[in-house]
Amino acid sequence: MGQASQEFVAEAARAGRAARHAFRILRSSSSAMRNHALLILAESLESDSVQQNVFAENQKDLAAALANDLKASLVDRLKLDVKRMKEMASAVREIAQFPDPVGEVIRGRTLKSGVRMIQKRVPLGVVFTVFESRPNVTVDIGALCVKSGNAAILRGGKEAIHTNIALHSIFQDALVKAGLPAESIQIVTETDRELMLAFLHQDQLIDLVVPRGGEALIQFTVENSRIPVVKHDRGVCNLFVDQNADFDLVLRVVANAKLQRPSVCNAIENLLVHRAYPHTKKLLMGLEQEGAILLGDQESRDTYEGVGEIKNPDAEYAQEYLDNRLAVKMVGSVEEAVEFIYKYGSGHSEAILSRDVEAIDRFVASVDSAAVFVNCSTRFHDGGQMGMGAEVGISTGRLHVRGPMGVEHLTTTTYVMEGEGQVRL
Amino acid sequence: MGQASQEFVAEAARAGRAARHAFRILRSSSSAMRNHALLILAESLESDSVQQNVFAENQKDLAAALANDLKASLVDRLKLDVKRMKEMASAVREIAQFPDPVGEVIRGRTLKSGVRMIQKRVPLGVVFTVFESRPNVTVDIGALCVKSGNAAILRGGKEAIHTNIALHSIFQDALVKAGLPAESIQIVTETDRELMLAFLHQDQLIDLVVPRGGEALIQFTVENSRIPVVKHDRGVCNLFVDQNADFDLVLRVVANAKLQRPSVCNAIENLLVHRAYPHTKKLLMGLEQEGAILLGDQESRDTYEGVGEIKNPDAEYAQEYLDNRLAVKMVGSVEEAVEFIYKYGSGHSEAILSRDVEAIDRFVASVDSAAVFVNCSTRFHDGGQMGMGAEVGISTGRLHVRGPMGVEHLTTTTYVMEGEGQVRL
Repeated sequence: MGQASQEFVAEAARAGRAARHAFRILRSSSSAMRNHALLILAESLESDSVQQNVFAENQKDLAAALANDLKASLVDRLKLDVKRMKEMASAVREIAQFPDPVGEVIRGRTLKSGVRMIQKRVPLGVVFTVFESRPNVTVDIGALCVKSGNAAILRGGKEAIHTNIALHSIFQDALVKAGLPAESIQIVTETDRELMLAFLHQDQLIDLVVPRGGEALIQFTVENSRIPVVKHDRGVCNLFVDQNADFDLVLRVVANAKLQRPSVCNAIENLLVHRAYPHTKKLLMGLEQEGAILLGDQESRDTYEGVGEIKNPDAEYAQEYLDNRLAVKMVGSVEEAVEFIYKYGSGHSEAILSRDVEAIDRFVASVDSAAVFVNCSTRFHDGGQMGMGAEVGISTGRLHVRGPMGVEHLTTTTYVMEGEGQVRL
Repeated sequence: MGQASQEFVAEAARAGRAARHAFRILRSSSSAMRNHALLILAESLESDSVQQNVFAENQKDLAAALANDLKASLVDRLKLDVKRMKEMASAVREIAQFPDPVGEVIRGRTLKSGVRMIQKRVPLGVVFTVFESRPNVTVDIGALCVKSGNAAILRGGKEAIHTNIALHSIFQDALVKAGLPAESIQIVTETDRELMLAFLHQDQLIDLVVPRGGEALIQFTVENSRIPVVKHDRGVCNLFVDQNADFDLVLRVVANAKLQRPSVCNAIENLLVHRAYPHTKKLLMGLEQEGAILLGDQESRDTYEGVGEIKNPDAEYAQEYLDNRLAVKMVGSVEEAVEFIYKYGSGHSEAILSRDVEAIDRFVASVDSAAVFVNCSTRFHDGGQMGMGAEVGISTGRLHVRGPMGVEHLTTTTYVMEGEGQVRL
């Protein structure tokens, strides 16, 4: 894709300049003021009249979803009710209670020159987020950005547009009531790809792009953005069962890692089992009973007849199923498991279940992923579970942040250097 | 620029795969082994026979530079002699002596679930660096990458090609002697832009791009890279003299910030003086005596006749002179100075010279740059001066690293999560 039309470029530049302007005010705002805005927002999300309005707008999106014959899982994600509004409000309150990352001193020392150096966190700037379906992302990411003193431009999916506009309007009201610029959080209502392209070229006005969604969206962003991208890409997560692992632990952890919520990125897609593990058949039967749909190589199919055939291993082992399918592969060693993970994994989450400390150490040292799990479920790869609170997403990139992206990662740093006339010799 | 030709894509992919392969070995190599390679390299750089060979190759580049009528400053940067070889060797030894950033535990705690979480530094991956002129960059960046367990592909400028090839060959010999893969550090000898484009599209094989050079190079990289870029962009640095600043301190610090080494990014380009500062004329005369070529607005020209006219302020105040020119502007307040910096600065280094604590605080809180200097020279914005040792460069970006980029910033992190069968509820 080449250039965006002049009209779209002007629209993106206008939004970028407004966000930049809001950022300068946010940057100097107090923590108390930003938290105040979030508490007003939380209260508003729980008020009857606000909810009635949101539900009416949400109905429009749901009606369109039905008319367009959207998948039931997507329709479910889209639907807002009193419970979900309450959950959103709770998430916002939780964010308001986080410690403020802004101003945190990362290091400080007196240099040889006598200059006192302090490195401290400051807000990152203007964040452009592109996401799909779930309307709560509008509130979550907006709240994380305001918390950390950043301005945000949110570009949600077409299928949730009415709901997103309604939620955004509540958000802006809360900002204004707290004395912060309404344009701290902006929404893009035109979902044309060409407009997105225009935004991705605004590297003078926007500091960070966060795409959350399918592969095509992420690919488009990475290929076209002139702005740094923190991507939240596929989770092709793998779990390796070593020969001596405890059966009860194995069945419980594998079932959890695959089935507790198969549609998320930290659920596993591939199960690697050591050839010498004595309970493979029992494990596979157990997983099937709990709802897994098993696919596998010839060896695993010979072990248990309930395993379906993988026709194209190179494609399927690299696939993020996002449902109950689980691909099985028998391996002869930790090294073979590691090779498989290098070949097919997406660097998100890998696990080893073993009682052999030496095998565990080799596995942990060899795989190169955002998180490695030893004798526990990959489902713990989550900002909330890892004690960071709400997250912008799970970064599969290697720069700036890898793993859960929390408010800390919505900051950059500045050095303050204080002297008494020192010059460089 | 669109697509690179098939031949260049194949060349970039080959180099990328070789680097990726070397990285897997480096990633598991010991700190001792990597330091050993660096010490062999340092020794080699000081050996007579090696130096004779490097000087012979350097002569070819110098002859070509003269034939192409390169600027004297560029020819000087290019030239290697015994002293410079010794400096390179010292820099490599210093890097070998740094603490190893790899393995450093950033945080660790037991989570509510009982899972023990450890976040630790691991090597970043494959780094692609594009740089111009100075051949010591080949050795410096190569050494920083090996130190931190990363593979690197170095693409130096055409004008230093023979010297770079000679230095690279010494580097590879040292790697092999230490038992590390020769392809840990690769050099690109073809300097075609189209080949560079092919490299910038290898986001599956390369993790980070570091451009060091002129604006055109950085612009090309940012526009075309699918790989995250840490840019080392222009330094349009500004210094503000407040009304009550001490004259001796002011003259000394401004002269140092401008004239100690005008060709580098942390030297100042613009001098902002408070209208109520009583010693402006004396300051400007003093700077002129020390070699500054003064340009300024009408007000500063009225103050001292030695100030030349700025014909196009919007262009000139935003310009990185890289020589003895210093643009002067009179302002009425801290706020006016801050506005000027927002408008013309590049977010690199800003300074305030003042005795007024309240004015200093307002300045420090308001400017949004990588480093802010209080009563000292901007020339301290340097990895060595700031106690980080040798640096890859000074990042003007806001993500991953802002300010000096040291070995620590050539790492990413991984989470190791250890449990005893925990699952997510």
